[in-house]
Amino acid sequence: MSLTVVGSIAFDAVKTPFGERERMLGGAAVHFSLAASFFTEVRPVGPVGDDFGAAEFEVLESRGILTDDIERVEGGRSFFWRGRYGYDLSVAHTEDTQLGVFAEFEPKLSEGSKAADTLFLANIQPDLQRQVRSQCAARLSGLDSMNLWIETAKDSLRAAIAEVDCLLVNDAEIRQLTGESNLARAARAVMELGPCAVVAKQGEYGAALFTENGFFALPGFPLEDVRDPTGAGDSFAGGFFGYLDGHGGGLDEAHLRRAMGYGTVLASFASAARRSTSASRRCAG
Amino acid sequence: MSLTVVGSIAFDAVKTPFGERERMLGGAAVHFSLAASFFTEVRPVGPVGDDFGAAEFEVLESRGILTDDIERVEGGRSFFWRGRYGYDLSVAHTEDTQLGVFAEFEPKLSEGSKAADTLFLANIQPDLQRQVRSQCAARLSGLDSMNLWIETAKDSLRAAIAEVDCLLVNDAEIRQLTGESNLARAARAVMELGPCAVVAKQGEYGAALFTENGFFALPGFPLEDVRDPTGAGDSFAGGFFGYLDGHGGGLDEAHLRRAMGYGTVLASFASAARRSTSASRRCAG
Repeated sequence: MSLTVVGSIAFDAVKTPFGERERMLGGAAVHFSLAASFFTEVRPVGPVGDDFGAAEFEVLESRGILTDDIERVEGGRSFFWRGRYGYDLSVAHTEDTQLGVFAEFEPKLSEGSKAADTLFLANIQPDLQRQVRSQCAARLSGLDSMNLWIETAKDSLRAAIAEVDCLLVNDAEIRQLTGESNLARAARAVMELGPCAVVAKQGEYGAALFTENGFFALPGFPLEDVRDPTGAGDSFAGGFFGYLDGHGGGLDEAHLRRAMGYGTVLASFASAARRSTSASRRCAG
Repeated sequence: MSLTVVGSIAFDAVKTPFGERERMLGGAAVHFSLAASFFTEVRPVGPVGDDFGAAEFEVLESRGILTDDIERVEGGRSFFWRGRYGYDLSVAHTEDTQLGVFAEFEPKLSEGSKAADTLFLANIQPDLQRQVRSQCAARLSGLDSMNLWIETAKDSLRAAIAEVDCLLVNDAEIRQLTGESNLARAARAVMELGPCAVVAKQGEYGAALFTENGFFALPGFPLEDVRDPTGAGDSFAGGFFGYLDGHGGGLDEAHLRRAMGYGTVLASFASAARRSTSASRRCAG
């Protein structure tokens, strides 16, 4: 089995009440890939600048991740995000976002990535998500998004959602997307667009799974020492889709529930241990 | 087995986007008692005015609740709360609170209430909670509180908490009480005061249980049709302590976890069905 993921490959600067780091390997596709690498062959797709060097490739490759579709743009800068957290680590405050090479990104998948069994469209502009979706005939597909695209590209986002099997976003985004304050009804409204499963990420509260006939929820693992929750949701997605791909179970209820468990475990490691490039490796290893 | 609960016995006026009611039977001790009545003999303790009549007593008595310790103050008015909810039903906006006969309340328990096996101190001024606690030698005791008492009577509240086995409050209140942003650490700080179990109510996300050696969490039941969440937390507490009292299991882990399940179920009925005095009866019956 194999899994293709498209999304940001980035450097993050993060400040929390417990410390500060100026440059950590980050981005949704990186967190996702590290988590999914425990279950299956993973191919991240996305551009990086020439600030993305051998040390960064090594973090991914040491986990067996296939980096052929990471496009290195000479003279470009990698996506950069700067954020901070207060004592409430559930709320990230963005201080700076620099798209860098992502501004000109036109996804072109290799034959290997196109042939993947599973595709995850991490949070990027929904037209880009659709371009990737059209290149990959994966039998199982998932999508993440964010409030920015709900506000600025809603029609395109709805079209992208219609083309995947599983939507995996924050619970507030499910409400915002559907205009429905009740989460159970909101999830049903999403399923009417196309997906047969909806996963609502709920931060420290865990995650909830809605399917046509079922509901399942898992609390977050109660860490006493949360260092940095950046990427926890992407790690959840990596554990979730990594397990589904690696165990070939499709979207039947039992497999989905087990995938929720693996997502929860990987998210807890991501929150507890991320500190630097080498810690990202430790987190995932 | 028998259970004594002290707390407000009230009338509520509630407005939501889906409707409005000017006068519903409410109050923490009422919601708690209705929920606990499915499991054990319940004795609510608290004052009411002469606006609290036969119809209100009948709601309680029809569920076998013993009303001898409901003190009817002639010429007085019952506790009254007016609140509204927006589309986010998880946030109550208080518009008016009239203490009425509660302002002069001096708890005096009957012999029957003093002899209860289990005692629940619902959210009232912590000195009153301690007065009740000193009159009742229950082998199992629990306590609820609110931000108001953390802000205005913290020392007294900490002393009250030290005298019970189980604290059951909203998760934000556990953080506020302990000054600890991490919930797992905050729960441990509470246990250092005395309780051997801490239940964090988390609204629609459910509830989490912390004990010396364990963690357990249950999501809320995913209702598609939430009418009015007022009293859901009190109904949770009633299901939780009602089950513990009725099944005599003390505070061992297995009993506590099962009690979380009953609390969750009773809270879901309270949120879905409460509409009027007669609906309160339906909700609980």
